[in-house]
Amino acid sequence: MTILDLLKREQLENNRIKDMEFHSVGLFGRYQDSAVEETIIFLQSLLKNRGLEVFLGDPTASEIEGIRVENSGRPLSDTIDVGIVVGGDGTMLNVARMLADYDLPLIGINLGRLGFLTDIPAESMEQKLDEILSGDFSIEKRSMLNASVSQGESIIVECTALNDIFLSKGATGRMIECETTIGGLSVACTRSDGIIVATPTGSTAYALSVGGPILHPLLPAIVFAPICPHSLGQRPLVLDDQSIIEIRIVELAGADANFFVDGLHSLALKGDETIRIQRSQNITRLVRSKSHNHYATLSTKLGWG
Amino acid sequence: MTILDLLKREQLENNRIKDMEFHSVGLFGRYQDSAVEETIIFLQSLLKNRGLEVFLGDPTASEIEGIRVENSGRPLSDTIDVGIVVGGDGTMLNVARMLADYDLPLIGINLGRLGFLTDIPAESMEQKLDEILSGDFSIEKRSMLNASVSQGESIIVECTALNDIFLSKGATGRMIECETTIGGLSVACTRSDGIIVATPTGSTAYALSVGGPILHPLLPAIVFAPICPHSLGQRPLVLDDQSIIEIRIVELAGADANFFVDGLHSLALKGDETIRIQRSQNITRLVRSKSHNHYATLSTKLGWG
Amino acid sequence: MTILDLLKREQLENNRIKDMEFHSVGLFGRYQDSAVEETIIFLQSLLKNRGLEVFLGDPTASEIEGIRVENSGRPLSDTIDVGIVVGGDGTMLNVARMLADYDLPLIGINLGRLGFLTDIPAESMEQKLDEILSGDFSIEKRSMLNASVSQGESIIVECTALNDIFLSKGATGRMIECETTIGGLSVACTRSDGIIVATPTGSTAYALSVGGPILHPLLPAIVFAPICPHSLGQRPLVLDDQSIIEIRIVELAGADANFFVDGLHSLALKGDETIRIQRSQNITRLVRSKSHNHYATLSTKLGWG
Amino acid sequence: MTILDLLKREQLENNRIKDMEFHSVGLFGRYQDSAVEETIIFLQSLLKNRGLEVFLGDPTASEIEGIRVENSGRPLSDTIDVGIVVGGDGTMLNVARMLADYDLPLIGINLGRLGFLTDIPAESMEQKLDEILSGDFSIEKRSMLNASVSQGESIIVECTALNDIFLSKGATGRMIECETTIGGLSVACTRSDGIIVATPTGSTAYALSVGGPILHPLLPAIVFAPICPHSLGQRPLVLDDQSIIEIRIVELAGADANFFVDGLHSLALKGDETIRIQRSQNITRLVRSKSHNHYATLSTKLGWG
Repeated sequence: MTILDLLKREQLENNRIKDMEFHSVGLFGRYQDSAVEETIIFLQSLLKNRGLEVFLGDPTASEIEGIRVENSGRPLSDTIDVGIVVGGDGTMLNVARMLADYDLPLIGINLGRLGFLTDIPAESMEQKLDEILSGDFSIEKRSMLNASVSQGESIIVECTALNDIFLSKGATGRMIECETTIGGLSVACTRSDGIIVATPTGSTAYALSVGGPILHPLLPAIVFAPICPHSLGQRPLVLDDQSIIEIRIVELAGADANFFVDGLHSLALKGDETIRIQRSQNITRLVRSKSHNHYATLSTKLGWG
Repeated sequence: MTILDLLKREQLENNRIKDMEFHSVGLFGRYQDSAVEETIIFLQSLLKNRGLEVFLGDPTASEIEGIRVENSGRPLSDTIDVGIVVGGDGTMLNVARMLADYDLPLIGINLGRLGFLTDIPAESMEQKLDEILSGDFSIEKRSMLNASVSQGESIIVECTALNDIFLSKGATGRMIECETTIGGLSVACTRSDGIIVATPTGSTAYALSVGGPILHPLLPAIVFAPICPHSLGQRPLVLDDQSIIEIRIVELAGADANFFVDGLHSLALKGDETIRIQRSQNITRLVRSKSHNHYATLSTKLGWG
Repeated sequence: MTILDLLKREQLENNRIKDMEFHSVGLFGRYQDSAVEETIIFLQSLLKNRGLEVFLGDPTASEIEGIRVENSGRPLSDTIDVGIVVGGDGTMLNVARMLADYDLPLIGINLGRLGFLTDIPAESMEQKLDEILSGDFSIEKRSMLNASVSQGESIIVECTALNDIFLSKGATGRMIECETTIGGLSVACTRSDGIIVATPTGSTAYALSVGGPILHPLLPAIVFAPICPHSLGQRPLVLDDQSIIEIRIVELAGADANFFVDGLHSLALKGDETIRIQRSQNITRLVRSKSHNHYATLSTKLGWG
Repeated sequence: MTILDLLKREQLENNRIKDMEFHSVGLFGRYQDSAVEETIIFLQSLLKNRGLEVFLGDPTASEIEGIRVENSGRPLSDTIDVGIVVGGDGTMLNVARMLADYDLPLIGINLGRLGFLTDIPAESMEQKLDEILSGDFSIEKRSMLNASVSQGESIIVECTALNDIFLSKGATGRMIECETTIGGLSVACTRSDGIIVATPTGSTAYALSVGGPILHPLLPAIVFAPICPHSLGQRPLVLDDQSIIEIRIVELAGADANFFVDGLHSLALKGDETIRIQRSQNITRLVRSKSHNHYATLSTKLGWG
């Protein structure tokens, strides 16, 4: 993509946000969680009262009465123009991946602890939603990762992640050995428990536990971090988000390795696969109330007080 | 054990070392490794020439001609009074565990890279062995760990380790949650990739990769370290070596966890097990040439230069 | 010290604790702090009512009426048999060093945040003190460090610390280079912001911020940790508490370095000094209520919840 | 700067590089270093033979015969069109700051250890320089930082750095407390030994020793990292390079703090200053031979082997 393309895209985007009004909403929540169900029923009624069309989306429990997104008779992109996710960051990750192709803005409501992605507490959701419906919000465009796992010439898995892609040794106490290239350049041979590649969004999740830095959510960058590397000098790298990362397992440690997408197990690795990771063409659009402050969330969740 | 017991043991030990002379030796090496075989054949001949009885022990390749330890017609403890381990630290770990009950001194010869345990390079083994046979050596008593895994009332695994005992989440991208008590006191609820408990010997192995400190090999201490903990405040602990550590998995993460002894997979954990770890009554006696310098080994292996 | 010496000392100690009764107490608190003053006045009255002799010790504000320890007409060791320290861990460190030669048990009362050393909150001090006065307590013997700084043959500073001894580059942006020997063995040449040597007590203070482990308070060990070392392999060491550590600055970085005792500036270093650190013959005896739980304190202060 | 500005600048830049030919060169090296002098004399002769005008620049020793840059009778920007820096990364930092306003490409030749900035070894400089003179090179544009220190309304220091800007507690064992805002948003109150703000170039220097990540040299980002923070959750941040960082000392620790530019002491801080850091309008242009591989340099210098 040239800078000129970027420029055009930016202008389109700006026009798009200016005109953004929400008329129909999809409600998404964790399956079989009674607190989530209650909140969704409450929201359904609230939003209908505000004049919106309301649909229920997966993984919401089918017990709730209402029209399901897939039964609207229209393609999803014509059905809803915003999603509300009720639950925690894990639910948001799932919904964001599921809707990645539709480019829909998402609002996150947390029922328990404050989340990085689901930052509106249930207590103040009515007020915050009213603010947002009145146009008082901003959109945070979070980058996503695209990964493919291939064996020889054939791609066996292709996937999109909002937080991270990682591979990890399996049921073995020894380290796996991986070779990484970035943009075709050989980077390192790494003996470790695995390797994590994370978006800025994922930098506060698992990547933080393995010693990675905290990236500003909008930074055009990717974290590459070995997990418990044998070599103490192999510190986390922060790469340009245009980087193409290829990881090849040189030596399994006597057991299948595993491949994960946003922390979900995707595939057992035999050792002859090549994993290719780069920024996805999709993004996740988070709707933020104007008072949202990323640093305040960090401070609360990481005990900076 | 009271201090008086320690005192008596110490005196016995001192007498023992003073009188230590090696008359019969067992040779141990990695199975099916031609460089190891060559060295063992060389040592067999060298040591016979020096007037020692020489036996071959597991896992040495059976292809080598010679009398195997188990065919000596005597119990192992009456057969050999020192073991020579040829290979790397991994081989030494295996032999040390195998011979843990026999209280034999062990000499480590490395064929490749300098090891923490196998510190005599093949190039100088003749000279170093002659020094040792002439009584010019010291004994380093390395503590070992004993672990048991129990379900309800029944113990399902019991084992001894020279480096470390650890449990680790299995094929899952989520963290496992464990509760730990030390000496019966509740310590912490830990969400992490696993927990490692290491001896001072193991402090320079996997425990170092998870962020643990380097313990002096003879320190009467145990390292307790969560692996990639979610809470950034859960830093490695160094405990008294009389500590009894009990770990109970509170929540598996959707897959069996795994239990490892010196990095070898021992057991899949279902989540209802209790793991109890304490210092073993056995120790590993490493024979060190007088010129051995632990810090020089650290400096070489960790790039302190 | 031989094991026999240790044994004798241990027996003496056990007899001593069994007979320990407190008849006269010294109150110590931070100078010119009105909350501390109030608490000390309250304690003075409380303890007199319990039949104890009460003295005021430095650094307590002289404004409080009462007999000062130094005016008792008797040597300090005959004047009081327990000290109560009101304030935070910093005050306890100061009092512990000041009384290091007198081998007095110390009780710590914190007025603000829970301390590692001052663990009785002001709210429950009356109850906890009554428990302690009735004999319901244990003594935690915390090791201390002794350090000397010498130039050529002459010792220019000698000091005792409860937490740590450290040296640190001064007003310079470059690292200092130090050579360390432990027990006469060369350990490493370190380029860093400085070097910290800490007791188990100090392992939860500054040493923790530089990446050191958390030692059990009674472990017979010493932490040696470079501060922000240039070489990523130079990780914290945990040494036997009989170790003698000698640090020599090889290269200052264009400014005096500084030498600190429990975080207090003690000396500007010109670069030709030798710093020798070992376990002190003195210890600090902390009086602990029976319900004290070290891990609970760690959990609270480090956010393990 | 809008994306359109960026676009124009990029086009100008591309034209500029295409036409870049070197006709006159300035030689820069560390003062009073005989190996540097020899190399400079050799280069002077070599480059004259290649038909270039050669000038000597500071801090080169005045003992070398030749025309000094400042005596050319022309402004520096008309005098030389490329600089060659002989020495190590420290010398390159000094020259880069000195020439920051002139937008000159710089070639780095190291005489000792491989540098991140001075990556052409003296042994192969003749060959590499011939490649570069024949147009076979690329330009790496390294971002720089601009910092100002102000007291009340008046700016007392303003400076530019290629590696980093940091403040650090002075001759005190206690931590300093700082408040930071980024883009006007309150980030955190930090108790630490200091705070470092680094460019991608500086991410492999001091920032790495304090636990920071390794940034790709061209990433439009800034590292913000507390030095040995008291709160274990205060991990390094990676910010957008358009961020404006303001740091205010809340509490000195009983001694002046210090302010550093590329590791050089710039100012003693009294505690009432505000430090404002942002990306500089200047950049450093490093001339790289086509075979330069950033990851190979990392691998060598950090022992990734």
